[in-house]
Amino acid sequence: MERQFDEELKALKEKLLRMAGLAEESIAKAVRALKDRNEALLSQVLEQEERINLIEIEIDEVCLRLLALRQPMAGDLRFVTSAMKIASELERIGDQAVNIAERTTELLKVAQLKPLIDLPRMAGLAQAMVVDAINAFVNRDADLARGICERDDEVDQLNHQIFRELLTYMMGDAATIPRAVELMLIGRHLERIADHATNIGEDVVYLVKGKSVKHHIEERGCRTS
Amino acid sequence: MERQFDEELKALKEKLLRMAGLAEESIAKAVRALKDRNEALLSQVLEQEERINLIEIEIDEVCLRLLALRQPMAGDLRFVTSAMKIASELERIGDQAVNIAERTTELLKVAQLKPLIDLPRMAGLAQAMVVDAINAFVNRDADLARGICERDDEVDQLNHQIFRELLTYMMGDAATIPRAVELMLIGRHLERIADHATNIGEDVVYLVKGKSVKHHIEERGCRTS
Repeated sequence: MERQFDEELKALKEKLLRMAGLAEESIAKAVRALKDRNEALLSQVLEQEERINLIEIEIDEVCLRLLALRQPMAGDLRFVTSAMKIASELERIGDQAVNIAERTTELLKVAQLKPLIDLPRMAGLAQAMVVDAINAFVNRDADLARGICERDDEVDQLNHQIFRELLTYMMGDAATIPRAVELMLIGRHLERIADHATNIGEDVVYLVKGKSVKHHIEERGCRTS
Repeated sequence: MERQFDEELKALKEKLLRMAGLAEESIAKAVRALKDRNEALLSQVLEQEERINLIEIEIDEVCLRLLALRQPMAGDLRFVTSAMKIASELERIGDQAVNIAERTTELLKVAQLKPLIDLPRMAGLAQAMVVDAINAFVNRDADLARGICERDDEVDQLNHQIFRELLTYMMGDAATIPRAVELMLIGRHLERIADHATNIGEDVVYLVKGKSVKHHIEERGCRTS
């Protein structure tokens, strides 16, 4: 029985890792499509979202079954309920990648405003946060999880910088406004992805340390918006 | 034992209702501060967020205790795990209200761009969605929950309209750009709040009907972004 439970937990972790891998890939593809003006990648993002959504349902069902049949206690109980929350976060990361793909579809219809450097960099940071967040969870690594929180600030700063730069374009030439706004919103989507990764990181610290870092006053700087 | 479990569930529902009430009030205050240029309301939003955060931690603890000690089955099990997810959604609604308050702080430093009509209307819709979502949950009312999904489309359309209107301001006069962008982002925050309410609605349908509406192809129109 104990052994079977371990097997089930292992299978659950594998599902989460697969889901996170797909989510990371979706971000990469959506932003590559934007950077390289490669429309073919966009349909892959939509396809992957469907797979991500299905895995979320699977994870939910596995967790409910584990709770009902194995009645885990203490750390295992927290692990299973955290897995359900984390799967929701990953699903929303997939949604954000789709949002980026949708905005990219519009942007590819018109001339490029400028070569993109910072948005792909921001995407790279966000992708790494997603991967590390899920690794922190499956390995119950609180240090890795805490680091994610700090990296979220870096993403926010980069987004702010992108925002300022786009504002100067907009103010210099009104014809750039619609494109600049789309790019700003893509920046927002990437920021949201980093926020979701940070939420996962916070859940992991809570899981490992058994206390909530989410709302500790001294760690407010880590709260996402 | 059975009776005690019912009492505990009742207490859990009351906590969720209180949390939702605070979240709704925070949105109302943040947007009223913006509309009436009333700075005093902003600090109340920040204060309420702290209370919302504390209730989330309490709900999490209550749910974990219920799972460990009562080992609920089937419908009750789903109810408790849903409560944990829903508390996360409410907490994020509180975060979004804080985001609106922060943008409002900036906007109150400068002259008003235009009298606001549609943003407060959008806020009203989003607030009602939050309240109804939580009522749908505590009363296991799938019809009410489904309706929320449709109202999310209305919010999205209103946001789109606001967005278009602000774009015309920006293109007509570059000096309006920074303020118009802030208002656009407030629209986005309200849209996110409606999305969180929709997530709750989806969870309720899942809870009551025992199936996931989240990712059904035919209901894709209900998916939030």
